[in-house]
Amino acid sequence: MITKQVRIVEVGPRDGLQNEAQIISLADKVKLIESLAQAGIQHIEAGSFVSPKWVPQMADSLEVMQEIKRLDNVRYSALVPNSKGLEQAIKANASEIAIFSAASESFCQKNINCSIAESLSRFEDIMTIAKAQGLAVRGYVSCILGCPYEGDITKENASSHFEKVKAVCVKLLELGCYEISLGDTIGTGTPKYTEQLLKVLLEDIPANKLAVHFHDTYGQALANILIALQNGISTIDSSISGLGGCPYAKGASGNVATEDVVYMLKGMGIETGIDLKQLIAIGNDISEQLNRPNGSKVGKALE
Amino acid sequence: MITKQVRIVEVGPRDGLQNEAQIISLADKVKLIESLAQAGIQHIEAGSFVSPKWVPQMADSLEVMQEIKRLDNVRYSALVPNSKGLEQAIKANASEIAIFSAASESFCQKNINCSIAESLSRFEDIMTIAKAQGLAVRGYVSCILGCPYEGDITKENASSHFEKVKAVCVKLLELGCYEISLGDTIGTGTPKYTEQLLKVLLEDIPANKLAVHFHDTYGQALANILIALQNGISTIDSSISGLGGCPYAKGASGNVATEDVVYMLKGMGIETGIDLKQLIAIGNDISEQLNRPNGSKVGKALE
Repeated sequence: MITKQVRIVEVGPRDGLQNEAQIISLADKVKLIESLAQAGIQHIEAGSFVSPKWVPQMADSLEVMQEIKRLDNVRYSALVPNSKGLEQAIKANASEIAIFSAASESFCQKNINCSIAESLSRFEDIMTIAKAQGLAVRGYVSCILGCPYEGDITKENASSHFEKVKAVCVKLLELGCYEISLGDTIGTGTPKYTEQLLKVLLEDIPANKLAVHFHDTYGQALANILIALQNGISTIDSSISGLGGCPYAKGASGNVATEDVVYMLKGMGIETGIDLKQLIAIGNDISEQLNRPNGSKVGKALE
Repeated sequence: MITKQVRIVEVGPRDGLQNEAQIISLADKVKLIESLAQAGIQHIEAGSFVSPKWVPQMADSLEVMQEIKRLDNVRYSALVPNSKGLEQAIKANASEIAIFSAASESFCQKNINCSIAESLSRFEDIMTIAKAQGLAVRGYVSCILGCPYEGDITKENASSHFEKVKAVCVKLLELGCYEISLGDTIGTGTPKYTEQLLKVLLEDIPANKLAVHFHDTYGQALANILIALQNGISTIDSSISGLGGCPYAKGASGNVATEDVVYMLKGMGIETGIDLKQLIAIGNDISEQLNRPNGSKVGKALE
């Protein structure tokens, strides 16, 4: 039942770096993205056109994306909050864009400053322009397994929360997203609820329209990814050397590390097309540049 | 199918500490063990009677075990390599003892200086004395999913290796062990091979005679534990704050962290009787004493 092939979406240069305090240079960002592509990653989130006031690390995304030498078979995507961001993404020659909403009203209010319904209706404009430009659109849904404001999933709220996640996913697919990335934003997801959520979603959404995006704040990411694989999901977001952190838990780790995911998949005989050795070298390099410990256990063991 | 209750065997004070370079005081060891028991852990590996030449950190195990204030419902076990070690364990008033062999001839030779068969026959004396003393004996089998000398599990060697693991487990059970702890000594196990191994073992051994002991060297431990749970295993070895390291991979992490295991189980509605908050405080304390980063992601996030 488990897929024989997994597509890795590398989010380190965006979701990872934007949560790293230390700013790295344009040249180093370009080198990071180019080397990830050379290691065999075929989908890299290369930048974000959210206001640099909110995300200073992403202020040079236009330059980064204009400067990278691209490989033919690699998609270089950009995160886009609104039509203005989309203009920038087009200027940056993004291969595709990503938009984001949440399954928690409080999170949506605090992060996007509007209700979930409003966030979705705002995307209609973006979708029209993206369609006209022939740009594929990926949708992120945050807080699928817990919210920093509304709390953890419990026996009592699980089923209503999972229905809410589904409603947002369905709406984003209706709007024209080709895939939904399910974000465990604060990393509180554990295998049982991950499985329950996926069962609810898979009632109405085919597995090939879903990706999983786990943060490893509580070390649960690989176990949750295993559940996703067991349920037919074959697209996994991850971040080189576990780049990123968690603004809601001081000292916590970031996204699940690409190296650790690829190591697990390799052990399971699942093909990713990625060279683990190259990946480990890239992870150790960027960790050194950021002056932080490598967040990948594989990276640390094989340094 | 997944069990509703898990027994945690805390190996931090032994398997964890013995791999930590910095020696900690007798008083701190006593405090560590007492506080783990107070947090609700009912089985603690409290010491080792291997030669202190090999394991300097364990040189005071007799004093540690004589000094701890014990709780009635807690088992305080000791690792024992031979009859001399067993004498010490009896003197130390160990609630039970643990013996160890391996599923790799090379590992057995390098670590115990004899063949697997010899290691097993040497245990006959120990078993006789332990039985006479009414001491329960737990068996460890190292290298269940890879060996630092013989290499990783591959498609080619998997099935013969798993039969070898089974033969050692069966022999230890025949000798009188009440339970076998399956040690992924170098942490190279991944979910598919973990599942294959367990399926082979469960053909002949009941699930309640097996425990899993994963090192988190490559970040795979929780995913492997999940597979064990899915296959009916309900005893898990772990180490507070992921104490320990890996002598075969510099910079690598140690045993899977008890906090991370308990967090996962809690999220899955599986009872352990352990207070996670107390556990986190203990993990942060011991990490500070050892002047090392906390190896538990849960511990770091909730510090």
